[in-house]
Amino acid sequence: MLVRIAEVEIHPQYVADYLSAAREIERASLAEEPGVVCLFPNQAGEDSTQIRILEIYASPEAYQHHLQTAHFQRYKQGTLHMVKALKLQDLKPLDAPSMRKIFQRMDLWRGE
Amino acid sequence: MLVRIAEVEIHPQYVADYLSAAREIERASLAEEPGVVCLFPNQAGEDSTQIRILEIYASPEAYQHHLQTAHFQRYKQGTLHMVKALKLQDLKPLDAPSMRKIFQRMDLWRGE
Repeated sequence: MLVRIAEVEIHPQYVADYLSAAREIERASLAEEPGVVCLFPNQAGEDSTQIRILEIYASPEAYQHHLQTAHFQRYKQGTLHMVKALKLQDLKPLDAPSMRKIFQRMDLWRGE
Repeated sequence: MLVRIAEVEIHPQYVADYLSAAREIERASLAEEPGVVCLFPNQAGEDSTQIRILEIYASPEAYQHHLQTAHFQRYKQGTLHMVKALKLQDLKPLDAPSMRKIFQRMDLWRGE
């Protein structure tokens, strides 16, 4: 399992274009790649140029496969000029056994 | 819905104690609070003093309730001296309609 948060800063004039590209890769990855467990992009509330993406891949192989897909290559090449800074923060879940429980609750949740 | 990432830096000598307290509040919150949708603490792979917690609350009221629970107060008071820096990064999901789909996949996932 690979868990990380991508911390992305976007040049202000490209924020709308970047959000569109991020939505597109999220949808294509979830639709076509069983090994992409979670791809959860968010915009910071107080600074719209700051993006945080929670990424969970089932295995290192699933991540390598993701990097080689046409939709990832399109996203990466298409957004290179929009990205001012990128930090990939690899993470170790404190409590891996409870991850399923946490996300099961998310699935049960019916709010807005 | 409230989504955020808490970015926490711990004084090095207190890392083990903090991880223990973080696991405890995660478990108590998920067990006792239906309004805590997700509390997902992680340690940075390259710097063990850096903690990232994905927090999702069902509503502002659910978050206010969380702050008033005995387990939150015990966590907060018990870890104040361990925390070197804390940033609460409020987030807006880019694609709220697909959140259930994302987390449903997490629940279906059986890997390690």
